[in-house]
Amino acid sequence: MPTLVLIRHGQSQWNLENRFTGWWDVDLTEKGVEEAKAAGRALVEAGMDFDTCFTSFQKRAIKTLNYALEEMDRLWLPVTKDWRLNERHYGGLTGLDKQETRDKHGDEQVHIWRRSFDTPPPEIEAASKYDLAGDIRYEGIEVPKTESLKLTIERVLPYWESTIVPELKAGKRVLISAHGNSLRALVKHLSNISDEEIPGLEIPTGQPMVYELDDDLSETDRYYLKDRR
Amino acid sequence: MPTLVLIRHGQSQWNLENRFTGWWDVDLTEKGVEEAKAAGRALVEAGMDFDTCFTSFQKRAIKTLNYALEEMDRLWLPVTKDWRLNERHYGGLTGLDKQETRDKHGDEQVHIWRRSFDTPPPEIEAASKYDLAGDIRYEGIEVPKTESLKLTIERVLPYWESTIVPELKAGKRVLISAHGNSLRALVKHLSNISDEEIPGLEIPTGQPMVYELDDDLSETDRYYLKDRR
Repeated sequence: MPTLVLIRHGQSQWNLENRFTGWWDVDLTEKGVEEAKAAGRALVEAGMDFDTCFTSFQKRAIKTLNYALEEMDRLWLPVTKDWRLNERHYGGLTGLDKQETRDKHGDEQVHIWRRSFDTPPPEIEAASKYDLAGDIRYEGIEVPKTESLKLTIERVLPYWESTIVPELKAGKRVLISAHGNSLRALVKHLSNISDEEIPGLEIPTGQPMVYELDDDLSETDRYYLKDRR
Repeated sequence: MPTLVLIRHGQSQWNLENRFTGWWDVDLTEKGVEEAKAAGRALVEAGMDFDTCFTSFQKRAIKTLNYALEEMDRLWLPVTKDWRLNERHYGGLTGLDKQETRDKHGDEQVHIWRRSFDTPPPEIEAASKYDLAGDIRYEGIEVPKTESLKLTIERVLPYWESTIVPELKAGKRVLISAHGNSLRALVKHLSNISDEEIPGLEIPTGQPMVYELDDDLSETDRYYLKDRR
């Protein structure tokens, strides 16, 4: 039976400050580090093990994975990093305080930007210090100026199909450390969740989500480790 | 011009305790962590950058790389881990205090085990708690029972040729975080050092060693960053 576990990164500095983050490369807080280590310990306690790991190009996900692997004594496992597992790009909202944005644009507009399936936020301005076009880490790829959840899914799923699915089909046990929206993309696909429902699905930070899959990689069960202890 | 930088891991717990370590997976000390971070900062200050990284299956080298990459804001770089970059296997000496071993076997014998090119220490006993045969990280490979420097070179160089050389020839800038003896293997090869001389070459922990190479990967210069500041 294929093994797949998803982890959303531990608390980041901008989770704590309630700011839109997206592609900006914010670090974990001390609490986020502790969440990552606890995730690793929970996986050990559940007797789970892995053959290969995937994460994004963003340090909050990479470090969450590294801390979890260290707790599992599995730092030596292969880790593949890819920008297609990055968080949704929040466009012109990047860096803004969520409450200030509500005060300025109204609750309804901010709710649409945060929770609509296919309405992207305004594009990031080229003059913004948070614009990553030209950053060497994204050399050769067209950095988005903004993304809806739908656009996020459209880059996550081809990567899933081309790179992660073959590992699962080869019998590898896979651990993915990523972000709220890149994980929503996977959960929507694996659990067949509607366009209307998926934006409202909250994935808590640092909580391993276990997928039990059949040989066709269809879900037979899905649960958080914390709910099975 | 190809770029290659070698780093020996920062101080480990058994460096500090003066014990033979080899393949045993000892962690960094606080000082070792600081050395790793300082190595990252020194690389930034020298204006050096990389496209890909290699390390061993041992946490002291993996963590040294991770800490250095974090200081360089390059955690997103690809990292390939391979057991062939592991430290020399110290056989039956693994875990022993170096001074106690000298008291028991004599200075001369210990000097031969430590500094001979082709005399391996006694084999590790199967009952030893430090024997890693059967460890899942080494599944599918024959874990050595002991290694001389010569035997270490015989596994490092084929990996160098098959996996690292093609990256350098493709123009990639390569950073390798490894161990005293797996790095001696590379330095012997790249700098054409004799069998007699190489066991005495001391590579300090946490000090980036820069190789300037021509297109055939022959050395044109080799220096520690610390000596060029």
